[in-house]
Amino acid sequence: MSDLIKNGSYVLIFLDGKRNWIREVKEDGTFHSNKGQIQYNDLIGTSYGRVVKSHSGIQFQIHKPSLTDIQTSMGKKTRISTNIVYPKDAGIILIESSIGAGSEVVEAGTGSGALTFVLANAVGSTGKVYTYEAREDIYQTAKMTLEKYTPTKNIIMHNKDILEGVEEKDVDAVVLDLATPWEVVEHAFNALKPSHYFASYSPTINQVMKTHEALSIDGQWGMLKTLEVLQREIRVKPNATRPKTWMVAHTGYMTFARKLYDGYS
Amino acid sequence: MSDLIKNGSYVLIFLDGKRNWIREVKEDGTFHSNKGQIQYNDLIGTSYGRVVKSHSGIQFQIHKPSLTDIQTSMGKKTRISTNIVYPKDAGIILIESSIGAGSEVVEAGTGSGALTFVLANAVGSTGKVYTYEAREDIYQTAKMTLEKYTPTKNIIMHNKDILEGVEEKDVDAVVLDLATPWEVVEHAFNALKPSHYFASYSPTINQVMKTHEALSIDGQWGMLKTLEVLQREIRVKPNATRPKTWMVAHTGYMTFARKLYDGYS
Amino acid sequence: MSDLIKNGSYVLIFLDGKRNWIREVKEDGTFHSNKGQIQYNDLIGTSYGRVVKSHSGIQFQIHKPSLTDIQTSMGKKTRISTNIVYPKDAGIILIESSIGAGSEVVEAGTGSGALTFVLANAVGSTGKVYTYEAREDIYQTAKMTLEKYTPTKNIIMHNKDILEGVEEKDVDAVVLDLATPWEVVEHAFNALKPSHYFASYSPTINQVMKTHEALSIDGQWGMLKTLEVLQREIRVKPNATRPKTWMVAHTGYMTFARKLYDGYS
Amino acid sequence: MSDLIKNGSYVLIFLDGKRNWIREVKEDGTFHSNKGQIQYNDLIGTSYGRVVKSHSGIQFQIHKPSLTDIQTSMGKKTRISTNIVYPKDAGIILIESSIGAGSEVVEAGTGSGALTFVLANAVGSTGKVYTYEAREDIYQTAKMTLEKYTPTKNIIMHNKDILEGVEEKDVDAVVLDLATPWEVVEHAFNALKPSHYFASYSPTINQVMKTHEALSIDGQWGMLKTLEVLQREIRVKPNATRPKTWMVAHTGYMTFARKLYDGYS
Repeated sequence: MSDLIKNGSYVLIFLDGKRNWIREVKEDGTFHSNKGQIQYNDLIGTSYGRVVKSHSGIQFQIHKPSLTDIQTSMGKKTRISTNIVYPKDAGIILIESSIGAGSEVVEAGTGSGALTFVLANAVGSTGKVYTYEAREDIYQTAKMTLEKYTPTKNIIMHNKDILEGVEEKDVDAVVLDLATPWEVVEHAFNALKPSHYFASYSPTINQVMKTHEALSIDGQWGMLKTLEVLQREIRVKPNATRPKTWMVAHTGYMTFARKLYDGYS
Repeated sequence: MSDLIKNGSYVLIFLDGKRNWIREVKEDGTFHSNKGQIQYNDLIGTSYGRVVKSHSGIQFQIHKPSLTDIQTSMGKKTRISTNIVYPKDAGIILIESSIGAGSEVVEAGTGSGALTFVLANAVGSTGKVYTYEAREDIYQTAKMTLEKYTPTKNIIMHNKDILEGVEEKDVDAVVLDLATPWEVVEHAFNALKPSHYFASYSPTINQVMKTHEALSIDGQWGMLKTLEVLQREIRVKPNATRPKTWMVAHTGYMTFARKLYDGYS
Repeated sequence: MSDLIKNGSYVLIFLDGKRNWIREVKEDGTFHSNKGQIQYNDLIGTSYGRVVKSHSGIQFQIHKPSLTDIQTSMGKKTRISTNIVYPKDAGIILIESSIGAGSEVVEAGTGSGALTFVLANAVGSTGKVYTYEAREDIYQTAKMTLEKYTPTKNIIMHNKDILEGVEEKDVDAVVLDLATPWEVVEHAFNALKPSHYFASYSPTINQVMKTHEALSIDGQWGMLKTLEVLQREIRVKPNATRPKTWMVAHTGYMTFARKLYDGYS
Repeated sequence: MSDLIKNGSYVLIFLDGKRNWIREVKEDGTFHSNKGQIQYNDLIGTSYGRVVKSHSGIQFQIHKPSLTDIQTSMGKKTRISTNIVYPKDAGIILIESSIGAGSEVVEAGTGSGALTFVLANAVGSTGKVYTYEAREDIYQTAKMTLEKYTPTKNIIMHNKDILEGVEEKDVDAVVLDLATPWEVVEHAFNALKPSHYFASYSPTINQVMKTHEALSIDGQWGMLKTLEVLQREIRVKPNATRPKTWMVAHTGYMTFARKLYDGYS
């Protein structure tokens, strides 16, 4: 039994890795591209995963937007920050912080909402994502974007600067994508269950150094680790297989630590 | 409220990145290492996340085993295969295949159970992992290992060669870690919902080429993509920060594709 | 004693990593850019390494073109091939093939002449570079380009397909940047001194596989090795140091082997 | 005409990438390994590049030691420093500093002599390498090692701390592998020709930051750039080609700059 596309559904209209778009299907509406038009009425009531021809004869794949499709799309839309957390980094954050179905996670800042979306998908209806965003305009935009793509019952959004404190207690993980994560270390400590996970994403090595310094005071944190993940795409073609010429060489470093119950003496 | 360690709990006893062990806490039992002994009775009834001293005065962290701790440990124990799916690769598989709370996933082969464990944690109690393993000894070992670390109600284990077919229908993702994934492409197609995810992990580029070839027949699959993920650890020390000297340079390539409903004409 | 710029000298006019140009200094001529003009007469008779202001007040560095400057520039000019051998790869070819002052090297194809230029600089006046290029138009263009940048007394150019054979004997290294290097393995063998170096640069893994196959026949070659070199640039800024966001992720693989005198039995 | 092995020649005795040795051929002497013995008398008067059998029937390749063979061997022998400049880094230093036949280069510290050896091979008999080493024991060891492998007429060794100044003027490049390269920036400036090359190799990012800071004072240097080079080896096997599992993930960063004649105003 496959999902059917409805009026109001979001679809990924895919030509190739560079030319693809997430669009809301609107009755009587039309998708326009320089490779031709598609009538949304031709999609409504049909299955995701179809290949449809534009009126100029070009074939497009019509997909249910994936985690990566949506995350990437959110990144494109935001003009607020040039750095969104990429899928490759979101994956390692989930795994290294043991975030899964049922987890309760604090996140800051909300930003584009791209990582919030991934976290909400991971924790599911039995978990919770508490996300903090200081700036009101960003908060409002993220709220609207998230409501488009996901049932947000498991997302609690705070329009509040996390530097002022975390309201939640006994959470499973605190995930930070902030300019000054070292200022939130103490708040994260107070919010976490013992043995649980601090994760911080930072583009520069200077931020990493300061975060480590803050995590090293008083012997309160264990298992400190900083990782960087590089993702390479391989172009597989008969008789001409090779890695792609260009890649994103750096997005950010991820620093992980676990809360100690009573720390080193 | 923090979890308390009980008789029968598994703990990670952590000295440093190289010297750490997952152990079952047994009443009246003792943990032995060349850095001294720890009496399990001293742990029972206390919180995870504590730092305890061995009788020779060395401090160990006592943690609730994380996803990564368990996954890595499963990899060490198996003598069956030299390749387990690493955390970095498991992360990207989850994200790129949109696997989250509630997903229904087919996996083959079960192998050490390390990836099964990660998938089960991701899909949670509202999802399902159907895992296939042809060899009986491996199947039995994986079963025992999985029962140690996770409630396995959401895991259905088949002691069956997936080359003979997939019993499930309309699943959200098929994840393969097999020597000959190209032979399972047709079975995967039949098991998947349209627009959903085929993911295959292979150490060699020759396997990737053959898998692409199988995925390219008949225009049945869309959005083919092969990724490789490199993880680098940064050693952060005051005045001496640098990437670690050695790293795992290659584990495997991951090939993704999405089932088309009616394919290219 | 520093070199002085003369009428007819080539200079690198440098604004930043993306905006820089190699130009011939011509009496009474003018350099034009959207950051203003520079009169060449103001450069003639002065030292390389100066910072000069354009008429609109922007400061440019004036350098003697380096190996990398010229190699990169040659790459830009050629429309023949999208792949030039990058500085990072040229470096490893020199080192792994033990090419230095006095070496005699066979190269094919000449292509843009970029690698020829690097080899000629390395072997110096006591060495020789014999370079083969099948296509006449490419041969002529490379000849003109090389004459601009280097005294070519140590370069012998053949307008000849190396598939027809190598005229030289007892050379120190054979360096190939060809679509089908495996077809030249036997010619390379005949041209080389025993224990000396075969080096082949290829963008695709399929070419590497075929080259290895050709090198593995009859046990005539030793110490086969294929390397790939990734170069990452670090943007060093006070309080904001990080690798650059984008990098060239793949140029080519380099395969090395050494001629055996009598081979494996 | 191939070189013949003589009494006193150095040879590389090669079994595989891990088991290979550079040895001096001594009349009536014997090479011992756990794969059998080789009589040096059987090598004398024969060509490099032969495959010889040990008395236990194992075949070894006998090669003239290459740049990489010697550089790697020097690295193994030194107990002084854990960091030698690897071939991959030496290659990029040569290219980015435009070092070739005839160049005059200042180097510090001499260390194991591995990089001195590469530089001497690059500049040849028409160039010069001036190398500084503060510690006498290291200086003496490097002197002995270099005399074994290369005619040292083009190498001038100073047993002197380069922090006290550089004796040479108008050199083409200054290459540093020192704990505190930023303290030598001014000396390097005074020694170099305008438009010529400062190159510094440092394992930690903190050293890079301090070096950039020193290079940024007074606008005296142009074209600052920091590179990191990663080398990956591909294991090419029929039907099982893949990058090797482990690699050296980090050796050092290389910082380059060019001396300005009169600097920024």
